[in-house]
Amino acid sequence: MPEPYITMEITNHIFSLEFTVRDYECDIQGVVNNANYQHYLEHARHEYLITKGISFVKLHDDGIDLIVSKVEIDYKYPLRSMDRFIVTVDIQREGNVRLAFIQNIYRIPDNKLVVHGKVTGVVTKRGKPVTPGTLIELLGL
Amino acid sequence: MPEPYITMEITNHIFSLEFTVRDYECDIQGVVNNANYQHYLEHARHEYLITKGISFVKLHDDGIDLIVSKVEIDYKYPLRSMDRFIVTVDIQREGNVRLAFIQNIYRIPDNKLVVHGKVTGVVTKRGKPVTPGTLIELLGL
Amino acid sequence: MPEPYITMEITNHIFSLEFTVRDYECDIQGVVNNANYQHYLEHARHEYLITKGISFVKLHDDGIDLIVSKVEIDYKYPLRSMDRFIVTVDIQREGNVRLAFIQNIYRIPDNKLVVHGKVTGVVTKRGKPVTPGTLIELLGL
Amino acid sequence: MPEPYITMEITNHIFSLEFTVRDYECDIQGVVNNANYQHYLEHARHEYLITKGISFVKLHDDGIDLIVSKVEIDYKYPLRSMDRFIVTVDIQREGNVRLAFIQNIYRIPDNKLVVHGKVTGVVTKRGKPVTPGTLIELLGL
Repeated sequence: MPEPYITMEITNHIFSLEFTVRDYECDIQGVVNNANYQHYLEHARHEYLITKGISFVKLHDDGIDLIVSKVEIDYKYPLRSMDRFIVTVDIQREGNVRLAFIQNIYRIPDNKLVVHGKVTGVVTKRGKPVTPGTLIELLGL
Repeated sequence: MPEPYITMEITNHIFSLEFTVRDYECDIQGVVNNANYQHYLEHARHEYLITKGISFVKLHDDGIDLIVSKVEIDYKYPLRSMDRFIVTVDIQREGNVRLAFIQNIYRIPDNKLVVHGKVTGVVTKRGKPVTPGTLIELLGL
Repeated sequence: MPEPYITMEITNHIFSLEFTVRDYECDIQGVVNNANYQHYLEHARHEYLITKGISFVKLHDDGIDLIVSKVEIDYKYPLRSMDRFIVTVDIQREGNVRLAFIQNIYRIPDNKLVVHGKVTGVVTKRGKPVTPGTLIELLGL
Repeated sequence: MPEPYITMEITNHIFSLEFTVRDYECDIQGVVNNANYQHYLEHARHEYLITKGISFVKLHDDGIDLIVSKVEIDYKYPLRSMDRFIVTVDIQREGNVRLAFIQNIYRIPDNKLVVHGKVTGVVTKRGKPVTPGTLIELLGL
């Protein structure tokens, strides 16, 4: 994953959301299971879209889906039971048909970097990729 | 993700495991939720290790953990309710302290490529990275 | 939960399905997290319906849903990493609009009883409860 | 499930916690998958215990586990994407060795009753049931 997007700054993101680790998300090793970080990233993305007036579910009902085509996650430090953390969201266009969400997870209150993630998506209408025009417009990008 | 490891071949893997999609793994879009593919990949890796006499849980009890440091997943085609699929496992050393699991998911019976994944891990003993010597030996690599 | 339906017999069920515990289903206590047993029960029910030619997802697409109205689960013995087990399914009518699925989970190969469950459901068509006539017929009850 | 514990009141609980539905918790039917309500109930219980100075994970490290022996859940109304809800916790002794958590889920802001639950547990020390004395004391019951 290219380094430039890795910002250690917890500020200056277009969106961030606070979570608390739930014990059922932890596995035998006593840490959050790797797949659950994807859940955290997804939930933060969807909540961000909602602040922009975009409901993931309503889009789907209209035949429009934002499909994840690639996920890259660097695991830097594990979260444990009772940890609080924030998930950040930034977004950038990638070519004509792709959007990339750049997302970090920071433990709070010490701002320890937990996860860097890059989630690349394409917009599809009734299953076919389309330019993410409307979506981009709604996002004000 | 570099292309060389992407083999479209469903044969010639050191391990593969068959699964069936469970409806609770599907989301509102009617397809398997992205994070669940990571669960599939993990379960196939652990089952592979078991065939080599390595129990992930017993290792943990001995203070040894195989920690995932990076996950890269290309989503090629979605799985749906009732789909059957196989998850493959290949493994390669990366430098002195890393192992990379190269994993594909194919829908069956048509061998449609669903997911390419690369999961990089480090071996730790009581929380500190160690050379994956014993593990490598057990794996016969 | 009334005792009569609790049969310790591993045979004589209308359907049973074998599973293996996946490590991500276990929690910090080293045992399968309680909610996951509900997933196992659900998957066995859906696989049973499929053997009867009933796809849960296709039913939903036709406006028909089998809605769970009540779940009662007795946890008898925990499953752990690498355990194999079978989930059984039996079914009985409850009044005019309800079906009850009686389900047990047994560890294999020692047939240790892990979970007794009773899952009561109602059939709805476009959101309204209907008599489960067609479903009952398809199930041959 | 006996009716007395079913209180429609959203107030007057010893603890309550607010959640938002996460899209990955919803299934093909567009509603929260049944097993996830158990996750919500569990997380609220653990957060309640934390307010009493009891960490579920630390208890486990000391050999003490609060084991769920029975779960009864009445599903009254489904939660959907973007719904906010609160989970309540009440607690009562059941005989010498059991505790019962009485828990409701209410959608907000309309206070629609979503789920009634009763979760019965036993306290074990190194795997054997013990009287929940210390726990009861800590809880001030």
